[in-house]
Formats: sequence, structure tokens, C-alpha cells
Amino acid sequence: MEDQKPEELMARFEELAALEHEFEDVEEEIIRKAEALHAPLYKKRAEFVANIPHFWSLVFEQAPPEIDNFIQPTDSKVFAECLTTFEVSRFELHDPNGSPRSFSLKFGFSDNEYFEDKVLEKKFWFRKTKDWQGLVSEPVKINWKKDQDLTDGQTDAAYQLGELRKKLAADTSNGAARKEEAKSKEYKQLAQKIETATDASVSFFALFSFVSGYRWVSAEESQQAAKGEKERFEKIQRGEKVDEEDEDEEDPQDYQEIEVFPGGDEVATIIAEDMWPNAIKYYKATFDEDEDDEELSDLDVMDASDDDDEGEDQEPVDIRTLVGKGRKTGQEPPAKKQRKA
Amino acid sequence: MEDQKPEELMARFEELAALEHEFEDVEEEIIRKAEALHAPLYKKRAEFVANIPHFWSLVFEQAPPEIDNFIQPTDSKVFAECLTTFEVSRFELHDPNGSPRSFSLKFGFSDNEYFEDKVLEKKFWFRKTKDWQGLVSEPVKINWKKDQDLTDGQTDAAYQLGELRKKLAADTSNGAARKEEAKSKEYKQLAQKIETATDASVSFFALFSFVSGYRWVSAEESQQAAKGEKERFEKIQRGEKVDEEDEDEEDPQDYQEIEVFPGGDEVATIIAEDMWPNAIKYYKATFDEDEDDEELSDLDVMDASDDDDEGEDQEPVDIRTLVGKGRKTGQEPPAKKQRKA
Repeated sequence: MEDQKPEELMARFEELAALEHEFEDVEEEIIRKAEALHAPLYKKRAEFVANIPHFWSLVFEQAPPEIDNFIQPTDSKVFAECLTTFEVSRFELHDPNGSPRSFSLKFGFSDNEYFEDKVLEKKFWFRKTKDWQGLVSEPVKINWKKDQDLTDGQTDAAYQLGELRKKLAADTSNGAARKEEAKSKEYKQLAQKIETATDASVSFFALFSFVSGYRWVSAEESQQAAKGEKERFEKIQRGEKVDEEDEDEEDPQDYQEIEVFPGGDEVATIIAEDMWPNAIKYYKATFDEDEDDEELSDLDVMDASDDDDEGEDQEPVDIRTLVGKGRKTGQEPPAKKQRKA
Repeated sequence: MEDQKPEELMARFEELAALEHEFEDVEEEIIRKAEALHAPLYKKRAEFVANIPHFWSLVFEQAPPEIDNFIQPTDSKVFAECLTTFEVSRFELHDPNGSPRSFSLKFGFSDNEYFEDKVLEKKFWFRKTKDWQGLVSEPVKINWKKDQDLTDGQTDAAYQLGELRKKLAADTSNGAARKEEAKSKEYKQLAQKIETATDASVSFFALFSFVSGYRWVSAEESQQAAKGEKERFEKIQRGEKVDEEDEDEEDPQDYQEIEVFPGGDEVATIIAEDMWPNAIKYYKATFDEDEDDEELSDLDVMDASDDDDEGEDQEPVDIRTLVGKGRKTGQEPPAKKQRKA
């Protein structure tokens, strides 16, 4: 194998990075085209499934393991009882300073015993620093009813820190704000909440507290980084020399001690890119499993009846009885084996 | 929860299936548009990486776990020594009887000690029956050199059965051909090869023998099924009544005893949909890992030097030394943390 000179290797790396940047631009264009093609179908589907009780709770119940693993039995119970609508939207699709990779997850709920909110919307912005790019989000407040908080105070603590973060960002520079934040009592409270929580108890609703797999990145910082990156790649494409990139001086690992839902960006991405376009397939999978009685246990969820004695409603129940489609009716909708290719 | 009449539920299911069919049409249109946008970049990338030794073997080395788990150390050694080009193409993109979901994986090799072939191409056709849809493929013959077969005769046995299958299909009807095939000596030989093979020894090259996660489906059967499906959905969209679909009378599980590479369709799909468009990202990941010495062991592959004593070349070696980029040079290309969103 021939050896290569370091400077040649470096130049080649710069060119590869520039080519990769072109691929990323194309990916964004594909997202725009896919959204335009999907839009009328999403509208039609929303109208149609509005008449199917529990459509979305059954879709979440049948979600791929990368999502399902994060939905606890108590979360399933909340969804089965009161999730009425669900929508993914690409809210920066036509924003020249935004990204088609940004999206929101919007959950609509009926009156329920858990929280006051009728709508919980979680926005994920695609942003960049000079060392990183990915999804960031702001903690969403959930107005839990008394003694009903499934996250044991984590969503509240994350929301408090999020509010402080906004205030500091308005008052001081980027780096100074982050230092102030790390010294705050809100920071310590959240870090402690997370440290004392047991892994097993993480509710899916903690996703509403997700901030970042790296650290919070503001719109301003991201736009500046994108501008710098664009100039850099234009130079490379013109064959001009560019300065070597600085090494990352931050340690983003520090941030993770206050991340309530590590991997929340990946879970949200699978919901937006797989579960949302393929929702009908997942809904239908509920009924496919009817064919094999042995698989029934996968579908059991906590008892969703309005039992007054809350301490004792731990009996598993077949969620399909909630949609008038129990095995007892003897009625099997046509099952079709399918595979996404 | 209101109960629903079985016939209402059935009608609703038919309508949902018709809507799902519209989603599938849109997915195909998105694949066509994505291919058109990607085409010039794939061309540019192929020209650029032709000058980077080991580009594709490093990409496979850094592939996501769903692929990497199927690449044995001996497979890595073959790739490192002689994989020169790799290409995914959507060969039915503009075929009205084909599908944009069909694709081929084409591997180019330099002269090597393992097999005679300079090119190994594996085609996957997206096909349907009335109960199933997915990727099917024909076993590809690999002309192994003496005592070098990494699959211990599985690719040969699968190829023999594939040839018999073609012959039977030309001579008899669909169902009769399948019965003849199951009684053949070629069938028994392949089933026995698979039964006696240990799981640990499955080479990535066995992927070239993959046929189906269901059973082999011919182009004719698929076109007929697609036609029937189209007519059915058009009726539903006009609000006409359709007959209930027949229950599947086949047991496709039987087929799996002669499937050399179960899950081969999923592995190939991840290669085509993730690894192929994101190849530069995976290539760059090789060098990112330089930052953390502890991760080095992930990259170790079998010794790729031309050691004459084949029985003893089990020493692990850092594959990056093959591209003139060992840790010893002290030269670190700019690493950029990235995350696909």
C-alpha cells in the first residue's frame, strides 16, 4: 500500500467533507420533495383516522422496538385513555434560516386524570455548531395533576432550568450564560433529580424534557456556524486553501448530566421518519397479531377502565378490546403480511 | 368505548389498506426523485474515491451494527485486500413492470487468492404475492479458489438449487414447480448444509445466496399480484364492494430451511438506504475513532499482509495502517462529530 503525505491526506479530507456537504444539501431537498408529496395523504389520513378510536395509541403500541422500549405500561395506559390526535410537522420547511430536518411532535389529549394540557407539542430544531450538528429542543412544561406526575418532577425541574437558560441567554454572551447556568440551583436540582431516578422508571413523557445529545444550541449560534461552514466549503470548491479547523475546546459530555432523556433525538427521529409515514402499517399490525394467540402478551397493557381504586389497577388487559375488536367477536379483519423494503 | 359492527370494521380496514397503498405509491415516487437528485453526486463520489485506497473496505468496516454484525474478521480481510469498487443501483427505476424499490449491490475486486470473480453483483427485486411483498433474489455463483470457500459450500449448494428452480419454472406451473423443487436432491443438499453449519461461521459472502424472507417469487407472479391489487384498490376507491381476501394457504415458513442468509433482505436494504448514501460519513468515522485509543479494538482486523503461512495469519492489525494513516504518523485529520438527523 502506498504511503500518503499528511498534507495530501488533509487536503483530501477537506474535499471529502465538501462533497459530504453536497450530499447533505441533497438530503434536505429530498425531505422537501417528500413532504410535498406526503402532505395531501397526511391530511386524508388525519380525516379518516379521526373516526377510528384509539388509532394513535395502537400505533404507538405497535411502534418499532427503538420507540416501544421507551413506552412504559403506565404511558400506554395514558395513551389508551386519552390520546386523540397525533401529528408530525416540518415547521421550518420553507424558512431560509431554518432546516427541513426540524420537526415537531404534537400530541392531542382528551380530558384526563393525569394532566391539564389538551395539547403537548415538542419541537426539535436542526442546528449546528462548528463541531456538531443535530437536533435540539426546549423543555416543555406538562401541567401534571396532583400526585399524577409520571416523571417524578423531572419535567418540572427541566422546565425550570430551560426558563433560566432563556433568561441568561437574553442577558449575557453565549459562553458566560453557560457558565452561569452550570452554577445555578436549577441546574443542581435537575442533576440531582436525574441522578436519583432509577432507569426503569423513565416515562415516555420525559421526552418532553429532552434538550440535546450535545448541549443547547441557539438559533443565532447555529446560523453563524452554518454561515462559516458555507464559506469554508465554497473556498474548498474553488480550490482555495482553508485554515485547519480548531479543535473542539468544549466538553459536551458535561451537559449529559442534566439530560433527562438521553437519546431523545433518536427516538423522536424514528417517530418522525418511520412511525409517522408508516402509521397505518403499525396500526394494522395490531390485528395481524390476532392470528397467533401466543403473541398476545405483547399487547397487554395496564387496565384502562376507570377504576376508582388507583392503587390496584395493575391488571393487564388486551388493548384491542378498547376498539371493539376483541378475540371474542370471532371477527378477523384480513391480515396481510408486509415488510418494509 | 363504543362497539363496532364487524362489517363496518371490515369496510374500514379495506379503506385503510387502500390509503396505505397510496402511501406506498408516494414512497416509490420519493425513491425516484431521491435517485435523480443523488445521481450526479454518486458519480462525483465514485470518481473521487477511486483515488482513495481502501475507501469501501473502510466504509464496510465502519458500517452500522446491523451490517457489521454480519461481517466476520475473515470477510474484513478479503475486503481489505481486494475490494476496489462498490455500487448500488436501482436497476428497475424506469421499468413500468419493475419497482424503484429493486436494487443491486455490485462489488468489484482485484486479483485475489479467494475467488476468480472480478465482479460479484447481487440483485434484489421488489415483488408481491397476494399475501406478501418484499425483496427476492437469485443465488449468485462465487467461483471460489481451491480450499478458499468462506461459506463451506453453501453458495455452491444454493446456486445449484437456484439453477434447478429456473429449470422447473420453465417446465411447469408455479405450484407444481415448488413441489418438485422440495423433493429434489439439490434441496436436500442445501438444507443439510445449512443445518450442519454453525451460526458463528456465516460469512458475509453467504449474502450472495440469499433468496427470500418468504419464498422465491417470479416476475410473472408478482405482476399478476400487483394487477389484482390495483384492481381491488380501485374498486375500494370507487366505493364498490370487494370480496374478502382468501386466507393464505401456503406455509412460507417451510422455505426458511433452505435460506442461507435469513434477514439478507434487511441487511441489503440497510446497505442500500443508509450505508450507500452516507458512505463518506462512515469512511470519516474511521479517523474520528483515532481520538480515543480505547476504541481501537473495534477496528482491528485480521492481518492483511501477504503471509504465506495461511494457517497462522490470525494476528489482529489496525486496518488504518493499510491506508497510510496509522497512529504512528501522529497526523490527525479534522474530526467532526456528526449525527444523522
